[in-house]
Amino acid sequence: MKRTLREVAEYVGAILIGDAHAEVAGVASIRSANAGDLVFVDDRRLLESALSSGATAVIAGDFGGRQLQAKPLLIADQPRLAFARAAAWLLQENPILTSVHASAIVAPTAQLENCVSVGERAVIREGASVGENSSIGAGCVIGRDVKIGRDCRIHSNVTIYPGATLGDRVIVHAGAVLGSDGFGYVRDSKTGRYEKFPQIGRLEIEDDVEIGANSTVDRGALDVTRIRRGTKIDNLVHVGHNVDIGEDVVIAAQTGLSGSAVVEDNVIIGGQVGIADHVRIESGAILGAQSGIPSKKVIRGKGVVFWGTPARPIKEYLKELATLAKLTRHSKGD
Amino acid sequence: MKRTLREVAEYVGAILIGDAHAEVAGVASIRSANAGDLVFVDDRRLLESALSSGATAVIAGDFGGRQLQAKPLLIADQPRLAFARAAAWLLQENPILTSVHASAIVAPTAQLENCVSVGERAVIREGASVGENSSIGAGCVIGRDVKIGRDCRIHSNVTIYPGATLGDRVIVHAGAVLGSDGFGYVRDSKTGRYEKFPQIGRLEIEDDVEIGANSTVDRGALDVTRIRRGTKIDNLVHVGHNVDIGEDVVIAAQTGLSGSAVVEDNVIIGGQVGIADHVRIESGAILGAQSGIPSKKVIRGKGVVFWGTPARPIKEYLKELATLAKLTRHSKGD
Amino acid sequence: MKRTLREVAEYVGAILIGDAHAEVAGVASIRSANAGDLVFVDDRRLLESALSSGATAVIAGDFGGRQLQAKPLLIADQPRLAFARAAAWLLQENPILTSVHASAIVAPTAQLENCVSVGERAVIREGASVGENSSIGAGCVIGRDVKIGRDCRIHSNVTIYPGATLGDRVIVHAGAVLGSDGFGYVRDSKTGRYEKFPQIGRLEIEDDVEIGANSTVDRGALDVTRIRRGTKIDNLVHVGHNVDIGEDVVIAAQTGLSGSAVVEDNVIIGGQVGIADHVRIESGAILGAQSGIPSKKVIRGKGVVFWGTPARPIKEYLKELATLAKLTRHSKGD
Repeated sequence: MKRTLREVAEYVGAILIGDAHAEVAGVASIRSANAGDLVFVDDRRLLESALSSGATAVIAGDFGGRQLQAKPLLIADQPRLAFARAAAWLLQENPILTSVHASAIVAPTAQLENCVSVGERAVIREGASVGENSSIGAGCVIGRDVKIGRDCRIHSNVTIYPGATLGDRVIVHAGAVLGSDGFGYVRDSKTGRYEKFPQIGRLEIEDDVEIGANSTVDRGALDVTRIRRGTKIDNLVHVGHNVDIGEDVVIAAQTGLSGSAVVEDNVIIGGQVGIADHVRIESGAILGAQSGIPSKKVIRGKGVVFWGTPARPIKEYLKELATLAKLTRHSKGD
Repeated sequence: MKRTLREVAEYVGAILIGDAHAEVAGVASIRSANAGDLVFVDDRRLLESALSSGATAVIAGDFGGRQLQAKPLLIADQPRLAFARAAAWLLQENPILTSVHASAIVAPTAQLENCVSVGERAVIREGASVGENSSIGAGCVIGRDVKIGRDCRIHSNVTIYPGATLGDRVIVHAGAVLGSDGFGYVRDSKTGRYEKFPQIGRLEIEDDVEIGANSTVDRGALDVTRIRRGTKIDNLVHVGHNVDIGEDVVIAAQTGLSGSAVVEDNVIIGGQVGIADHVRIESGAILGAQSGIPSKKVIRGKGVVFWGTPARPIKEYLKELATLAKLTRHSKGD
Repeated sequence: MKRTLREVAEYVGAILIGDAHAEVAGVASIRSANAGDLVFVDDRRLLESALSSGATAVIAGDFGGRQLQAKPLLIADQPRLAFARAAAWLLQENPILTSVHASAIVAPTAQLENCVSVGERAVIREGASVGENSSIGAGCVIGRDVKIGRDCRIHSNVTIYPGATLGDRVIVHAGAVLGSDGFGYVRDSKTGRYEKFPQIGRLEIEDDVEIGANSTVDRGALDVTRIRRGTKIDNLVHVGHNVDIGEDVVIAAQTGLSGSAVVEDNVIIGGQVGIADHVRIESGAILGAQSGIPSKKVIRGKGVVFWGTPARPIKEYLKELATLAKLTRHSKGD
């Protein structure tokens, strides 16, 4: 959608230096920008290349002075954020028409609010509900009594087991599985065989959560698995039963959280991290990629980075690595 | 299904202390239990809270004495196991009617036994067979000549490549892929290019196996990949070609087994463990989360826990960590 | 398809010693071979067992002399390669008839070239194209404007997001997701909330790439994610946005590559390796299983094996492990 720079500046709360009537319709990186694109810089050293790019205008921090430049500038406190918001605004999809594809199979008791889109061959079972403006991708299977809020995007071939609830503006990428059985068995001490512990709890995913492609989130065993507002989860992540993930948590790809782990608000978790059962990661901690937290441990330290298996503060871990390297060099001289 | 406590006690082999006519219809955790629910305790310290919960009755070990309590008690040798069995019995799904959804595509030569349920849009190809009381989820693709036993539950959007065989009571969660090509190539030393080594072997999954959501199990290259009776596999696990997994093995989420690995009976494998090609894990060994077993190694030790990469007995590994921490503290003083 | 040994020898460029008219129709391992099968040996110590197997003929290196043996020999420079080629030739599927299953949903503006096969319930959206002799599996969702080359095999339940391009002879296994949104957010420093950074770039997969079951490949954020010619990727691998993977790279299962990582040609990457953002793995390096490469690192060394987290040359790593074990033993004696 074409917008004048005046409109964009107003929308993102930026100060406009330059031609208010110039129009943009998209965003790009500096190296690929063409006329009609917005670009951004959050580092003054990149301002020159942004100004000499093919873009129509540049969102920048307040480091360039406010004089007229080769291109219009939109000066923002948080230029990357302003760029993200401008992009979302310029690139928003056309309003979705209410459209349930003829090949979709929607149970008579399922409830679709206004402007819901249901893709080819999607299945929506008895008692499920989908809120306004949400879309269900092709091939999805939405189980019995699942509740999906408004403005959600459920991409193709997602499976949601019965009874899970999703808030508003939740995005679920293709192939994800939500609400599957947790991994819980009881071993019969007489026969040595494993029998299934009941996996009959709930899954609650709150507003503004995003879940990556082919990730899996198990429902609670007897109680609930919960992912709270604003948390972002990458691809191929595993969330076990009874896990409780706080608000505004970020979890990178291929990380796994075992049963009953608790992750408090604002935690940042790298890729391939392993969090064992009953662990508690307290608010604001940061777990480096591939770190491992053993069963029942508590990780505490706002803004502290932990690394290694078992995870320890990264400064300690790096000192240990340095000590070991030094001792090894010395022992060469033996 | 409602059952009297007398019926439940008899079914699970427990001693009933209290009102034999009271009825239960479900199970719950202590904190969420309501009237009609069974709860369990396997730790005497939790008995009080179970007795003061909303539950109708409590399955407990024989640690509380046998006098009448505030609630009926069902005293069992293995209370967690008795609870799991009671849950399975009370919560069993209604008998499945033979029901092949009109949108399913079942080849004329596919054979469905009595009481098979086939979900919406499932595809069952030529020569495949599905045993009594098994259900095939919506969107599944069951390849040519696949054999599925009786009482199996194949959840939605599962893909099974041609020729795989599954025993009885096998559970496969949504999105899993069974029988895919193994990862085998031959590099042409003249061109440096990789060419596909034939991946034409079989996949055999025995009775009572459960496979988690989005896990992948490759078929053999020339021979067979086998998962034996009673083994339980969590989500996002990878099983490579020609792997042989024994009976009653437990494998937690995101673990990977490379080609031709052998895992003997009763092994327990934590999450995110990496098992390289041609490794042998001998009977009863325990691999801690994130441990790594290098190519061709043999891990031996019934009941011994191994940890780290390369994996070693956990006592050694912990001593090494302690040594390193101590040396690092000292070197600070340098 | 039955072929005489003369035909096979000619096709793979081997020297035939023995009955040129004997026929083979398949391949097998030595232990499972029957009449009509080809087997191979690339180690002279296995020649005896190959000769006494049930196979009709043996592909071997030039280590057995050229006298007549108990079975016909096909002597090749690279016997494993000759075997792989013979297998591909003998086992090739019958020519695919143009066949779009009646249940598939192909948009009017999608373009299917000659001899394209489209499986049950597959969806091919507006503007997509599929080249000659390619097949699209059951349940696949091929997004708007996706371009798929010729002789591709897209297995069942694969999702390809809009605009991705695949070259010729690309194989994608079941459940893989190609072109999903990358994991990029901007945190609003005022509210602490994460907002989505635009994920609107492209995904380009070149000729002869193979991608394993349930793997996920994100499209670029603003630019492109690229996987170059001949690269082979195993199951459950994650490729983040803006990643650039070179030619003839091999990536084993469950490895993850974070945003903007670069992997040059001929790199070999083991399973469960973690490659952080903006890493560069230079040509010909080898990363051992579970190794981890921290953000922005450059790994250099043709033919050098790296291991550990953070990854270092394996010789160093093994020395460090030995040093630590030695120091730990000594400290026992304290």
